[in-house]
Amino acid sequence: MELITLSQFELVSNAFSFAIAVMGAATVFLFLGRSQVSAQYKTAVAISGIVTLIAFYHYWRIFDSWQGAYAVTATGISATAHKFNDAYRYVDWLLTVPLLLIELILVMRLSREETFQKSKSLALAAAAMIVLGYPGEISNVYSEKLKWWIFSMIPFIYIVWNLATGLTKSINSQPESVRDLIGTARNLTIISWCFYPAVYFLYLTNTMSGSEATTYVQIGYTIADIVAKAVFGVVIFTIAARKSEANA
Amino acid sequence: MELITLSQFELVSNAFSFAIAVMGAATVFLFLGRSQVSAQYKTAVAISGIVTLIAFYHYWRIFDSWQGAYAVTATGISATAHKFNDAYRYVDWLLTVPLLLIELILVMRLSREETFQKSKSLALAAAAMIVLGYPGEISNVYSEKLKWWIFSMIPFIYIVWNLATGLTKSINSQPESVRDLIGTARNLTIISWCFYPAVYFLYLTNTMSGSEATTYVQIGYTIADIVAKAVFGVVIFTIAARKSEANA
Repeated sequence: MELITLSQFELVSNAFSFAIAVMGAATVFLFLGRSQVSAQYKTAVAISGIVTLIAFYHYWRIFDSWQGAYAVTATGISATAHKFNDAYRYVDWLLTVPLLLIELILVMRLSREETFQKSKSLALAAAAMIVLGYPGEISNVYSEKLKWWIFSMIPFIYIVWNLATGLTKSINSQPESVRDLIGTARNLTIISWCFYPAVYFLYLTNTMSGSEATTYVQIGYTIADIVAKAVFGVVIFTIAARKSEANA
Repeated sequence: MELITLSQFELVSNAFSFAIAVMGAATVFLFLGRSQVSAQYKTAVAISGIVTLIAFYHYWRIFDSWQGAYAVTATGISATAHKFNDAYRYVDWLLTVPLLLIELILVMRLSREETFQKSKSLALAAAAMIVLGYPGEISNVYSEKLKWWIFSMIPFIYIVWNLATGLTKSINSQPESVRDLIGTARNLTIISWCFYPAVYFLYLTNTMSGSEATTYVQIGYTIADIVAKAVFGVVIFTIAARKSEANA
């Protein structure tokens, strides 16, 4: 593990603790809010809360792993024998990214057939994207990192293209009062998602020191997760609540 | 870290533990109470409970960080290599202060447009206030502390002025039975909020020893947090319950 400075260590620690608090708060908000939406939106809101709950768990593990990877002593900071476990992020994404796509599809209330088809193809592409990205994340070889980044970008582009075109078509069949909000949810997904390959790419092109890159990557992924999961969850809840009102 | 006496260490430890108990108790009270108010007040009461839950989490971390920052041995108390992490307070405020303003706005049931506008401008000002305060809190240089305190006071005054004037106008449109209580909630917010810059300012003007200042600052912030979050949350719940009765 690259050696980092004490202030970088503390900054990343605080970012992880912030994520724990945000994910926990979002989970409770969504689980409580589930009782405020009509029956047909309860699953979408429940899944939103489950996504932030899974992230809450993983950020707790990530925080502990980060604390265990460094020892702070009177003479400074040093790496311990326990290296920081990056796999927690990938395990988290493997679970949460397909669920995020499913919650967006569910809140749109497409036909049963369309819901099933879109959920299946987008969730499978999302899983493929995560699995293909991981070998690059853990490799230290430039060409390997680049190769897996490119492989992983294929399902990524498929998903983003699908959201941008497929969902845009479906938006026109949504009630007036939520069309803008669903557009916001879709844009939020696309923008926050583009953050991930951009952060990953930092390693490939950067001229920063190893510890600086580690700090930016960890904070970058944390911000992306907060937007893509917690902020997105609240938008999904708002859509569900508005649609419930419109039907009532 | 300034060295403190054993009794100062214990006093602060007990204050933190007290805050954990109060925040936990308030969270449970508010989450249970949520089922007793009408549908339109459930989000306000839920957010009140989420605020105390976030504070509960942070006071737990603060307590642990405080314990880890000092070693008590047979020969006395000494500082360890782990310094007390003041950032937990700022991370907490960054999340909870905008939410506190939103719960006050939500319980007033203004129009959707007004709710959205007020929430946005006050929440942004609150975030700016916290972000501008932090560099001063962690600095050891008098002029830096003063500079950031002044910067941070600009959004602070904007918020307090808004609460004092803007909300006062809206109070007259509230049902008779809760007008006084909403006035109380507003005054509680203003008074408990003024506590924070006053505590921060202690460092600037004090003639106390470093350890005495640390003790007063930690206990001062803890009392302010308990009033601004837990006591305030119970007032919000009481308003919501009275308004629910009035509508029934």
